[in-house]
Amino acid sequence: MKTRLYSKIPLAQTIVSLCEAKDIYHIVISPGSRNAPLTIGFSEHPDMKCYSIVDERCAAFFALGIAQQIKKPVALVCTSGSALLNYYPAISEAFYSDIPLVVLSADRPIERIDIGDGQTIRQKNVFENHILYSANLYSEIVTEKKIDDIKVQQKQHEAQKHNEREINLALNKAIEQKGPVHINVPFYEPLYDKITKPSVFPKNIPVEYPEHHIAKNVHLEMVDLWSTSKRKMILIGVNSPEVVDLEWIELLAKDPSVLVLTETTSNIYHSSHINCIDQLITSLSAEEFEELQPDVLLTIGGMVVSKRIKAFLRKYQPQSHWHVDDKKAFDTYFCLTEHIKLKPNSFFKDFLPDTLPIKSTYKSKWISIRDQRRDKHKIYLNDIVFSDLKVFETLFSEIPENQMIQLSNSSTVRYAQLFSLKPSFKVFCNRGTSGIDGSTSTAIGASLISGATTLISGDLSFFYDSNALWNNYIPSNFKIIIINNQGGGIFRILPGKEENTNFSTYFETTHNLTAIHLCKMYGFKYHSASDNEEVREKMQLLYQNNNVPQLLEIFTPRKENDSTLIDYFKHFI
Amino acid sequence: MKTRLYSKIPLAQTIVSLCEAKDIYHIVISPGSRNAPLTIGFSEHPDMKCYSIVDERCAAFFALGIAQQIKKPVALVCTSGSALLNYYPAISEAFYSDIPLVVLSADRPIERIDIGDGQTIRQKNVFENHILYSANLYSEIVTEKKIDDIKVQQKQHEAQKHNEREINLALNKAIEQKGPVHINVPFYEPLYDKITKPSVFPKNIPVEYPEHHIAKNVHLEMVDLWSTSKRKMILIGVNSPEVVDLEWIELLAKDPSVLVLTETTSNIYHSSHINCIDQLITSLSAEEFEELQPDVLLTIGGMVVSKRIKAFLRKYQPQSHWHVDDKKAFDTYFCLTEHIKLKPNSFFKDFLPDTLPIKSTYKSKWISIRDQRRDKHKIYLNDIVFSDLKVFETLFSEIPENQMIQLSNSSTVRYAQLFSLKPSFKVFCNRGTSGIDGSTSTAIGASLISGATTLISGDLSFFYDSNALWNNYIPSNFKIIIINNQGGGIFRILPGKEENTNFSTYFETTHNLTAIHLCKMYGFKYHSASDNEEVREKMQLLYQNNNVPQLLEIFTPRKENDSTLIDYFKHFI
Repeated sequence: MKTRLYSKIPLAQTIVSLCEAKDIYHIVISPGSRNAPLTIGFSEHPDMKCYSIVDERCAAFFALGIAQQIKKPVALVCTSGSALLNYYPAISEAFYSDIPLVVLSADRPIERIDIGDGQTIRQKNVFENHILYSANLYSEIVTEKKIDDIKVQQKQHEAQKHNEREINLALNKAIEQKGPVHINVPFYEPLYDKITKPSVFPKNIPVEYPEHHIAKNVHLEMVDLWSTSKRKMILIGVNSPEVVDLEWIELLAKDPSVLVLTETTSNIYHSSHINCIDQLITSLSAEEFEELQPDVLLTIGGMVVSKRIKAFLRKYQPQSHWHVDDKKAFDTYFCLTEHIKLKPNSFFKDFLPDTLPIKSTYKSKWISIRDQRRDKHKIYLNDIVFSDLKVFETLFSEIPENQMIQLSNSSTVRYAQLFSLKPSFKVFCNRGTSGIDGSTSTAIGASLISGATTLISGDLSFFYDSNALWNNYIPSNFKIIIINNQGGGIFRILPGKEENTNFSTYFETTHNLTAIHLCKMYGFKYHSASDNEEVREKMQLLYQNNNVPQLLEIFTPRKENDSTLIDYFKHFI
Repeated sequence: MKTRLYSKIPLAQTIVSLCEAKDIYHIVISPGSRNAPLTIGFSEHPDMKCYSIVDERCAAFFALGIAQQIKKPVALVCTSGSALLNYYPAISEAFYSDIPLVVLSADRPIERIDIGDGQTIRQKNVFENHILYSANLYSEIVTEKKIDDIKVQQKQHEAQKHNEREINLALNKAIEQKGPVHINVPFYEPLYDKITKPSVFPKNIPVEYPEHHIAKNVHLEMVDLWSTSKRKMILIGVNSPEVVDLEWIELLAKDPSVLVLTETTSNIYHSSHINCIDQLITSLSAEEFEELQPDVLLTIGGMVVSKRIKAFLRKYQPQSHWHVDDKKAFDTYFCLTEHIKLKPNSFFKDFLPDTLPIKSTYKSKWISIRDQRRDKHKIYLNDIVFSDLKVFETLFSEIPENQMIQLSNSSTVRYAQLFSLKPSFKVFCNRGTSGIDGSTSTAIGASLISGATTLISGDLSFFYDSNALWNNYIPSNFKIIIINNQGGGIFRILPGKEENTNFSTYFETTHNLTAIHLCKMYGFKYHSASDNEEVREKMQLLYQNNNVPQLLEIFTPRKENDSTLIDYFKHFI
């Protein structure tokens, strides 16, 4: 058996050991020299799953994808200098999506900053605006000689204690608060020395989960309000599958006074929910909006995609808005009354049994309107020309059961909201910052953990993250579907649309690119389609075998997509 | 003639107007909706040169390349959210390379931050660690109605005054201090409205250049020291062509007590300078180092590439180290005694006429050693196998006169330091942070301004910035030469080299990629070579015509490059 090696540098050993103690086993490493002690420590550890990814922007989104699925921290390791800054887009996404990430940036010792050394920047607290914790560690001098000077010994000992404490705090924060933390790790040279036995045995400070409860009087008030309100709306944003127990979903589904609105990214499916929010509320009159206005709004999950529901709830505010989340509550509708610091299951378990039923026509009325909308939707879709909207209908019917669907921003996730998806789909999208910058990398990271995955992406988002494919870990059953409408189709739907060069250059950003060359470069099997029949046919081929990763590029008519969508919404009037 | 249009939003007009007033005419725009008022304002301005680039990371390096050449600020315009964070690698490079960049980030109004809206992050001061100035502007509400309320009128007026002042301060700082500034610009909707006459006429606060002088006593002390020192070393790091007048270069070249060391990025060429520092100082004995140790070290320019000269000067410190730069001085050798806040020409003009000549053998001794090294260099190069080192020899002899040479990090620029380049070359490399992240984008930006350009890049650096080629402005005479050694060749030269999987995966990061597919994707003519003869032949083809951008990919033997280079340095002993 191969002898396990350790970096000779105690600080590197400390980090690897504490990651192990806290069950952090996925390590995404970008090449560098200053980070050699960490790379050695992690890659020599027999149980660590290390990944090597050159482009740090992709590396960070890839790590985000893994962490999105395992719900535990994934570590990122990079060298000093601008390497670290390339992590920032994914860090901000993690910050707003509550995904744990541990950034381990190697650095030069503090006296080497701003003196003209290469690959040296001001790394300390560099992510301050979007990080749960920044630990700035001390570097230790490691020499061959035994240190005799008691003062130096004491200083080394203090540095080690400081570092252990800071690493513990940072890692615990990432786990407890589910988000990104940054640990900046300065190293002296030599960087590559190894030893066969560790020289330090750092102490693990256990993770602590605070226990939250609702105060008794608040609970009673809430129970009373719930039991007497005839219009209760539950709106569920980004939410991982299996977070809310079926028991509660069923119970709420039966309550005539409760209307549950689920977004595509909520991963909650039930026949008596409103699952296509925009379809329902577009074209409502002021009177109808007043009838839809809830007395109580209960929100669960992260970001909400639908701009229309946000605008509606800001204008027709409920008397009470409760947000259930054990970490944070945004006052999205400017009327937040309670942040219930519990997980949804705990809340429902504590709360629902105490409530009393009330007669109401709230649910039945809106479910019947929903059904009318669904009929109109079908009729419209049957008639329309080949376009983005039509393509999404085909995709969601042809993608096999049990796929994880990763959606890119921005029009992709908005189109997806218009369709009833198969309940076996698990749906994810980077809605923390809603960026177009890392959807492919995220999808690849997620697919490693959760199996059969289809990424649906717009062309700009796909080409933006083209380096995502420079990745040796892409599963052979990974599928990408690109809706290539030769530009940012969303801009044609926004109010600024014009048919002139300034518009097509600086807003729509038209191009003639195709993914075929990237497929050749990175070993993807390539398919393309440009009409309805071809889409159906190629969708069959796409899922026929899983020998190599495959990509289907669907070319849609740039100038017809927007009118098809705009007319779709008009059609409900 | 087309009527010029303006964004209806006064804040957008103010920014465009002040950019115009301060001679900022190159505007790099990434698509988005929140930034529409700025995009409209700039793209409708008849004299503004706007560029549309989707990937903000590339956009920022592209802007950096333009600014590197024109030495005036270039503006970057992006939408809200993580888009902005993708600028950060280039901003840190600009910060350390003293290149003026103006980041104009659209934002949502402040009350919409952290309430769950899409593409919304904490943009305020987000680049704090690496920015000269962060201006956080106020948003104004623009309505159809005339505002009657005096308090509201007053508030709007105050906001406008605040914004004008902050924009002036930020733009002036970028110009005066040569570096990046960030202006965060929150906008209310509607974003797309246009008008035909501007509604505000912002006041331009003029740029002020502080005048620096050397105190008389300091001047006299320096003159005295210079006139009595027999060993004066001038070390020139990153420096733009034509910054130092030939008059001074000639004068110093004649002084027997002055040894001028020029890096490849110094753009200073003279037959009595040491232009290949590493060639000279590698293999010097302790005694020889003592003889090389200067009494006075005068440094000019930015970062120094050679690690060996830094190590030498830190160990064999001069009694006095003067750095001449009107902005900043790094204490790179831990012995800085004077920061002379002048431009080199002003300093030489003030200083040199007052000094007296002194007899010395300092220059002649080291120039004669330099000449021996040059002979040995030739002999070694004649004999070696096809390898990175050999390829660089061929490249620098075959690249035509008068090219701008853009070098990527990191081994590329280090190899370049070993050769005497044609004095008509202008050489640039992103040495502020020495990142591998944006060399191609920078080169493309620079080529737009300065004409015939060759980028020489390693494979990792090239693939890292592959989106650089997604750019509609690449001149048809733009050439790329990639030294593809199937990984990070530099790691094989660093102390950690091992022939095992962990090394090749996490350090060298080997791959089998080729640039041929990217060339097809982006319309580059592709050439390849894998032996000496082919390199010569393809170099001819590469420069034969300028109809389309062209790329030459040279495949070198991964496992032989390092030994060829290591033996090269041993050869001088």
